[in-house]
Amino acid sequence: MSIRIGILGYGNLGRGVECAIRQNPDTDLVAVFTRRNPETVSIYTETAKVCHVDEMEGWKDKIDVLILCGGSATDLPKQTPDAVRLFNVVDSFDTHARIPEHFAAVDKAAKESGKIGIISVGWDPGMFSLIRMISGAVLPEGADYTFWGKGVSQGHSDAVRRIEGVKDAKQYTIPVEEALNRVRSGENPALTTREKHIRECFVVAEEGADLERIENEIKTMPNYFADYDTIVHFITEEELMRDHSGIPHGGFVIRSGKTGLNKENSHIIEYSLKLDSNPEFTSSVIVAYARAAYRLANEGFSGAKTVFDIAPGYLSAKSGEELRKTLL
Amino acid sequence: MSIRIGILGYGNLGRGVECAIRQNPDTDLVAVFTRRNPETVSIYTETAKVCHVDEMEGWKDKIDVLILCGGSATDLPKQTPDAVRLFNVVDSFDTHARIPEHFAAVDKAAKESGKIGIISVGWDPGMFSLIRMISGAVLPEGADYTFWGKGVSQGHSDAVRRIEGVKDAKQYTIPVEEALNRVRSGENPALTTREKHIRECFVVAEEGADLERIENEIKTMPNYFADYDTIVHFITEEELMRDHSGIPHGGFVIRSGKTGLNKENSHIIEYSLKLDSNPEFTSSVIVAYARAAYRLANEGFSGAKTVFDIAPGYLSAKSGEELRKTLL
Repeated sequence: MSIRIGILGYGNLGRGVECAIRQNPDTDLVAVFTRRNPETVSIYTETAKVCHVDEMEGWKDKIDVLILCGGSATDLPKQTPDAVRLFNVVDSFDTHARIPEHFAAVDKAAKESGKIGIISVGWDPGMFSLIRMISGAVLPEGADYTFWGKGVSQGHSDAVRRIEGVKDAKQYTIPVEEALNRVRSGENPALTTREKHIRECFVVAEEGADLERIENEIKTMPNYFADYDTIVHFITEEELMRDHSGIPHGGFVIRSGKTGLNKENSHIIEYSLKLDSNPEFTSSVIVAYARAAYRLANEGFSGAKTVFDIAPGYLSAKSGEELRKTLL
Repeated sequence: MSIRIGILGYGNLGRGVECAIRQNPDTDLVAVFTRRNPETVSIYTETAKVCHVDEMEGWKDKIDVLILCGGSATDLPKQTPDAVRLFNVVDSFDTHARIPEHFAAVDKAAKESGKIGIISVGWDPGMFSLIRMISGAVLPEGADYTFWGKGVSQGHSDAVRRIEGVKDAKQYTIPVEEALNRVRSGENPALTTREKHIRECFVVAEEGADLERIENEIKTMPNYFADYDTIVHFITEEELMRDHSGIPHGGFVIRSGKTGLNKENSHIIEYSLKLDSNPEFTSSVIVAYARAAYRLANEGFSGAKTVFDIAPGYLSAKSGEELRKTLL
């Protein structure tokens, strides 16, 4: 029997989840819930329904796992605890600093309803967290490094777009190769923000806008750019569409540690992702964890979970026996 | 209260475990068991005892987890099922093809005794298996690649040493950079054995030995070398001691997969290890899983487990709350 999945929110992430479900034969998309008029939303899956979010409660017994595809700023802090009262859920809540309170809210609601709520699934938080955690447990004496990119930062692109005279913009976060190589050498360097990442902006300006002022406003913007070396390119709208319409991303997690009686031996663990589509990869991780949510719920577990709490075998459609035989 | 650990077998791996325990404040080495005369074995840890393996049963209630540091060929198939009748155990059984039967034997004995037996822990099997499994679950349409090295292969070094006229030898397994780069490009190539790895041998010959014959015997040795491009260097005993006395190893696991409605997006997951000391890194992984064995047993679980069956959080000395706050 297939795992019946619902999607709440049909943007880039929701579409990614829909595509990922098609690649996992043990999962079926049954419904997409939207705040828009359902008649205006067209999806790829002919066998699934598009419904208004207000109809969600009626699907209580027809969905095994609901995947929440809203944003972390305002949607998920409310949606996830609400939805877990009805469904097993998975979200990709990614405001790192607010994870403890989000976990607590989801855990409380999930324990009351007897459902599973897996939060903060994706690649960071998600796969990167898993690697940081396991690597630190394996090499307790050492240092962690996370680099992001090369990839599009939605938040930084938005920040540039808000500047007066900017028509459109894309911002790429790029790890500094020299910093990466210093970390890989086992040197355990202390790196400043500026030493770790470069920010590169492709900006379409309004006609007649003051380019020098725009460039200066970008480069001096606090939090977003002031602490980085930032490169600004002004390009045409056509160039932006042609060369920068994708949503690639990726990054590196490196643990550099020592072992031995006198810490004489160095070890480097490196995990990297090179992703053509950030939302589609995130969605693929989420669907694997939806499988885990379904199984954990069937085994009688409830409450909030993160990637740290779930045995990896739950993510795979293969049996334990098959996994041991083919992948161990 | 610390986790009381025993070690069975005090070679490179046993010494590595002893060093790793010193880096994990919540673990204590209490006893080392050896088949040798205990008086001839000196260990680093003053507070631990060296005992003959025949005394092991008397330690039944004084050890929380016994770490088995014997070999996979003949020691572990018997030792692990035997030991799990008395203790929670962790081993590094690495004969991939025989894992299913080893798992079954350990599982049966562990369920009878109510203990936990974690098998096949280390980096391959172990960390590499975990990455292969998780990556395959996340990107179900794609291909897996595992490359080993650069590092010392004990089995291949031994094979060279058995050749007549060879006094000593070290063999390095080296991944072919071009193959790695083809995989990283997302091309999903079908690679032959020869295309993936090079074998490089450093050989000390007996005085007057026929070097040409030795080189030829190495290069044509079935299973070990015949399917590879092999480089043979003859060096002096002093050079071997000076330049090749370490036991470095490492390798790469790469998953190359596609997502999207029409598989239009490519993703590369790459995990790599660069290890100064193969046995010390393996030991570090084992000690983290010993912590997991202790906790699982305390929670009432029993039976055989592998890295696929254990939630990552069990590996860390930190609480779930701390992990979520600092590493998610």
